[in-house]
Amino acid sequence: MKTQVAIIGGGPSGLLLAQLLYTRGIESIVLERKTKEYVLGRIRAGVLEQGLVSLLEEAGCAERLHREGFAHDGTLVSYGDEMFRVDFRKHTGTPVIVYGQTEVTQDLYAAREKAGGQIEFNVENVVIEGADSDAPRVTYKVDGEARQIDCDFVAGCDGFHGVSRQTIPLDVRREYEKVYPFGWLGILSETPPVNHELIYANSPRGFALCSMRNENLSRYYIQCPLSDSPEDWTDAAFWDELKRRIPAEVADKLVTGPSIEKSIAPLRSFVTEPMRWGRLFLCGDAAHIVPPTGAKGLNTAASDVHYLYNGLRDFYENDSTAGIDSYSAKALARVWKAERFSWWFSSLMHTYPDQSPFDLKMQQAEIEFLRGNEAAQKSMAENYVGLPY
Amino acid sequence: MKTQVAIIGGGPSGLLLAQLLYTRGIESIVLERKTKEYVLGRIRAGVLEQGLVSLLEEAGCAERLHREGFAHDGTLVSYGDEMFRVDFRKHTGTPVIVYGQTEVTQDLYAAREKAGGQIEFNVENVVIEGADSDAPRVTYKVDGEARQIDCDFVAGCDGFHGVSRQTIPLDVRREYEKVYPFGWLGILSETPPVNHELIYANSPRGFALCSMRNENLSRYYIQCPLSDSPEDWTDAAFWDELKRRIPAEVADKLVTGPSIEKSIAPLRSFVTEPMRWGRLFLCGDAAHIVPPTGAKGLNTAASDVHYLYNGLRDFYENDSTAGIDSYSAKALARVWKAERFSWWFSSLMHTYPDQSPFDLKMQQAEIEFLRGNEAAQKSMAENYVGLPY
Repeated sequence: MKTQVAIIGGGPSGLLLAQLLYTRGIESIVLERKTKEYVLGRIRAGVLEQGLVSLLEEAGCAERLHREGFAHDGTLVSYGDEMFRVDFRKHTGTPVIVYGQTEVTQDLYAAREKAGGQIEFNVENVVIEGADSDAPRVTYKVDGEARQIDCDFVAGCDGFHGVSRQTIPLDVRREYEKVYPFGWLGILSETPPVNHELIYANSPRGFALCSMRNENLSRYYIQCPLSDSPEDWTDAAFWDELKRRIPAEVADKLVTGPSIEKSIAPLRSFVTEPMRWGRLFLCGDAAHIVPPTGAKGLNTAASDVHYLYNGLRDFYENDSTAGIDSYSAKALARVWKAERFSWWFSSLMHTYPDQSPFDLKMQQAEIEFLRGNEAAQKSMAENYVGLPY
Repeated sequence: MKTQVAIIGGGPSGLLLAQLLYTRGIESIVLERKTKEYVLGRIRAGVLEQGLVSLLEEAGCAERLHREGFAHDGTLVSYGDEMFRVDFRKHTGTPVIVYGQTEVTQDLYAAREKAGGQIEFNVENVVIEGADSDAPRVTYKVDGEARQIDCDFVAGCDGFHGVSRQTIPLDVRREYEKVYPFGWLGILSETPPVNHELIYANSPRGFALCSMRNENLSRYYIQCPLSDSPEDWTDAAFWDELKRRIPAEVADKLVTGPSIEKSIAPLRSFVTEPMRWGRLFLCGDAAHIVPPTGAKGLNTAASDVHYLYNGLRDFYENDSTAGIDSYSAKALARVWKAERFSWWFSSLMHTYPDQSPFDLKMQQAEIEFLRGNEAAQKSMAENYVGLPY
């Protein structure tokens, strides 16, 4: 087979790139290791920056989002029984949109199908060859049958464990990592959310997050040891612990119910540099991971897609390599800012096993400074709603 | 002897408190362990917040400061060869005043002498007794002769190693500490400063600070291992190392010369709670230490003096204990903010022996965010010029 852009990975980054390219008449084929059902079943975050919303609009996939998504004009931060609000609209003029990543992916798949775009599922043994030449190709197997795509470019949207990053030789690749000494135990429950905006809670017992998907679907998280497994936590134990970590006035309003999903995610910061090698471009989790505090994962993938999409347009529409040549530098400049914010917000809100009494006081002082200082709130709001592309 | 307020420690905090009380007709006696010459010979920082300047005005000790001090409307931050300015006046409307702590202390001593205020030097064996009663007394020796002061209150302005903090029983005292794994090697030289505003420099070789006292007196610092001693560093070695840590355009302008003072100071964050025990009040270094990055030491001592002075006025002028009863809470609230800023600015600017490549990238990303984000600069400027009392 031949195409212009081979896209490895059928998650939201790959699909968004495919749809954006499609609007410009640029051909692509998407390769996905799993089934469509598996991809659509993945539960992820659901706070979208305006930049991602604009890209979804440009891709023609924002109709349901505008109908069903929730604009959040601010967020709450609590510590112990104290709570304050950071006002996004006041400080930036922009809200964030709460709309599940699962829904985004569904919309992208629906659009992709409507467009007759090609997606291969259940692909195995993906190998990217000749990325450092002018004629890259991707080989893979489906049901044991070997296939090959000849293409102009390869977009590596296949996540942290994907083959794309590993295709870049180790002697040109530099990796940066921080592993946090805790995880997030999250549950999804068909209950009304305790608050219409998110609550990020710092408590002596650890972090908690009250989040939501819609009027009758809540998403809650609590910081837990990495040694825990979801089976260690009954629903009752989860609700009890959550209540202990949020202000009493919030806990009193919390509606509990059976969990329909329960899982533990580790927290990691990770960046690989460069994000381009020859004609291979890394996008999203293939190049970088953020801890979920601040919801920068999907949003930062989207900014990569933005830069790559524009670089490829430059190439096909203007016969210029300027955009793809500057892709890695531009994408990384924004990635590091998102990494910094996610690391800062994680450091601010979690308890750490090796935290000294002084460190704890610094955390408290920083939260209190944030509470009282408009400039600090503005700086946080600007990061939360998304720094400019 | 009898007095209203016994002030332990003849540094700037003790003297400032004494002079402020004097303007209100409240009597005090200052006790100093060293000689006047020793106190006036101590070299310390020299960046004054407006709050401290106002207190010095109120104490009648700001005339020379206004004549000889330098208003700095901003500061420079460099990393490698990059440099940017944070504009205090734009963001806060207020400059800081560069005027050596040594000069402040001289002015305070001159005013104290003019006022005929009592200071005892060379005091030994200071003991604070009955601080938890209504009739505290301070006993001490001068030239082997035992003396005693009966007083209403004791102000502990005798620094980190002083007797005042240690007078508070361990079971009511809580201490918080962080020791930084490096020191500052500082020199004073009779050379024109390389820049009219301060330059805080982050470099892969460690932190450096270009500071100044006047047109022909410069103060420079470089981060160094705690195992170094000043004798390990010739002047030539110091200048060479300083030049490697600041942008080339700055290094090229640097005028070097013989050092007239050279010393190494460790960096420490320290806070004791509470800052009041009965009729004993801790002020300044007796209660808290900050690392010097951001120049909050003397300024935070001044905010303590402000709260204590107003509390004592409340007591003597209005017969109210409200001010002294809230002293510890009010002073500590501001202390923790200054501690946070000093810790943050230190963390941002120094190299750490255990810093991972990811940590280094976070530092770089934070400096770059500060460079590009107005709200972050405003937040820094507000801290630097001093948060409101």
